[in-house]
Amino acid sequence: MTVTVVVGNPKPASRTLTAATLVAKALRPDAEPAVIDLVSFGPALLGWGDPDVGAAVRAVRESSLVVFASPTFKATYTGLLKLFLEQFDGATGLADVLAVPVMLGAGPAHALAPDLLLKPVLVELGATAALPGLYLSDSTFQDDGVIDRYAERWRPVAQALEVVDHA
Amino acid sequence: MTVTVVVGNPKPASRTLTAATLVAKALRPDAEPAVIDLVSFGPALLGWGDPDVGAAVRAVRESSLVVFASPTFKATYTGLLKLFLEQFDGATGLADVLAVPVMLGAGPAHALAPDLLLKPVLVELGATAALPGLYLSDSTFQDDGVIDRYAERWRPVAQALEVVDHA
Amino acid sequence: MTVTVVVGNPKPASRTLTAATLVAKALRPDAEPAVIDLVSFGPALLGWGDPDVGAAVRAVRESSLVVFASPTFKATYTGLLKLFLEQFDGATGLADVLAVPVMLGAGPAHALAPDLLLKPVLVELGATAALPGLYLSDSTFQDDGVIDRYAERWRPVAQALEVVDHA
Amino acid sequence: MTVTVVVGNPKPASRTLTAATLVAKALRPDAEPAVIDLVSFGPALLGWGDPDVGAAVRAVRESSLVVFASPTFKATYTGLLKLFLEQFDGATGLADVLAVPVMLGAGPAHALAPDLLLKPVLVELGATAALPGLYLSDSTFQDDGVIDRYAERWRPVAQALEVVDHA
Repeated sequence: MTVTVVVGNPKPASRTLTAATLVAKALRPDAEPAVIDLVSFGPALLGWGDPDVGAAVRAVRESSLVVFASPTFKATYTGLLKLFLEQFDGATGLADVLAVPVMLGAGPAHALAPDLLLKPVLVELGATAALPGLYLSDSTFQDDGVIDRYAERWRPVAQALEVVDHA
Repeated sequence: MTVTVVVGNPKPASRTLTAATLVAKALRPDAEPAVIDLVSFGPALLGWGDPDVGAAVRAVRESSLVVFASPTFKATYTGLLKLFLEQFDGATGLADVLAVPVMLGAGPAHALAPDLLLKPVLVELGATAALPGLYLSDSTFQDDGVIDRYAERWRPVAQALEVVDHA
Repeated sequence: MTVTVVVGNPKPASRTLTAATLVAKALRPDAEPAVIDLVSFGPALLGWGDPDVGAAVRAVRESSLVVFASPTFKATYTGLLKLFLEQFDGATGLADVLAVPVMLGAGPAHALAPDLLLKPVLVELGATAALPGLYLSDSTFQDDGVIDRYAERWRPVAQALEVVDHA
Repeated sequence: MTVTVVVGNPKPASRTLTAATLVAKALRPDAEPAVIDLVSFGPALLGWGDPDVGAAVRAVRESSLVVFASPTFKATYTGLLKLFLEQFDGATGLADVLAVPVMLGAGPAHALAPDLLLKPVLVELGATAALPGLYLSDSTFQDDGVIDRYAERWRPVAQALEVVDHA
């Protein structure tokens, strides 16, 4: 059972990547998450058919748990992340994938965005979006305990679903 | 493990009630759902502290799976359903409850409403909102196969989560 | 040209009422807003056809500017306010009404709610929802200057639209 | 007073472009809209500082009315359109611009998307988002009369606001 982190930050090796990896490890302490830093694909995300992007799509589809992480730009997730989500097939592109929406922001004003804006795209792709969206402070997420409390609360749910969908 | 149906239609014994019961039975064929037809509470929902409403809140909290169903009024769920959801405590009012958002409408134009509008309220109350929102045609839901396909797809997820949250 | 304030707080004479009145006066300094405190209707809002509710609906429809104000309950507007909005006719119930969505909350976490959740209901009713949603801190709105800055920015837009829709 | 059409379809010269131009002309029959077909920028949208993108941003900012148009991908607007919106400054990037959100889809299931998903981004950028979102059928928009009815209803509002914001 594979855990993957998808990072939709136009800056490589961002705090978004760090936070998403922490979330993945907290939810599945026994697994080392694979990291897909979308910025590395560059212009290949603007079309369809690129082999590297295709490999990333397959890797996500074959994962049991995927953290989709984005900074908050203009009160919602990034265009970069959306470009990648558009590479998946219609209503089943994320079937049997436990998809966790994570967003980082400078302040709390956009805390509703993961559940109201990012999660519905994952649902549209057929994902099992069973966990609530997680909104993190981009300046304090390493120390504020939010990730730990989230993982403690939702880890049993995540584990139960990985068994079901990937029996 | 108890299954409950909460019906937010201002008309008693509505098609909403029928549809919600079908959804509950399709997801948990072995259980007879308890039905809470909110209209029966009348003005008691306008305040806090009514004993019958309190009993209904407790029944929901102690259920493992709850279908929250509403007709679509003005492109979203009803005020009647919202009044009932306001009876629950803060962020944990629906903790460990697998909550399924269901809405019925006359046409497909409001199909995004269960995931974009109703589900976030359930998430706010701490529910496990693991299944996608279900939008049904109020004239064809008994025959169009939508409920069956939904239940076939999501029943394993529902079952796995009931075991986890109510061990 | 009439200005009206609709208050969806289950507590009478609430801070929501105070804030909504301040918003209305800031947008239209020359008009004394009429106040509709929905809680005063009690159970009449649970059905259709009550004469007092009908008079309130007509008063709103005949207003040029209406502030719809609600506290934030469970991350969205109240069921009480929604009950009143359900009294209006389909897609034209608020036609030619400049409708301003205002919500109050204890902290900033739900700041997206007026635009993402309350405004779409007003749009569905055919309102001219030309101004951005306004989210206020329920403890500081009297002193923090947010209402004044909002009104200064949007008053010209409000004035231009009142002339157009009510020529 | 300039009218501009921003097209977020990854296919050049798309039906989205045709529809957006029709909307612009219907709202402002006397103006020939400038067209910005975002796909023409290619990879330049993935970063910041490209001079052609910068010129397009300035053209939008200096327009009085801008139609932002997108096909519906995964139940929402495209990543391509979002990339362009991320080029604007914080809360005032679209100040004094009357911004009209338009989305095209194959069926009515995503009809709520313009108001619930695209408009809030324009609001975040400080636009005057005074008109309701417009959802069009991508196969019938040229003949179904939806654009004409929309324009007839909202043209007076658009005209009044152009005068105010660009006096």
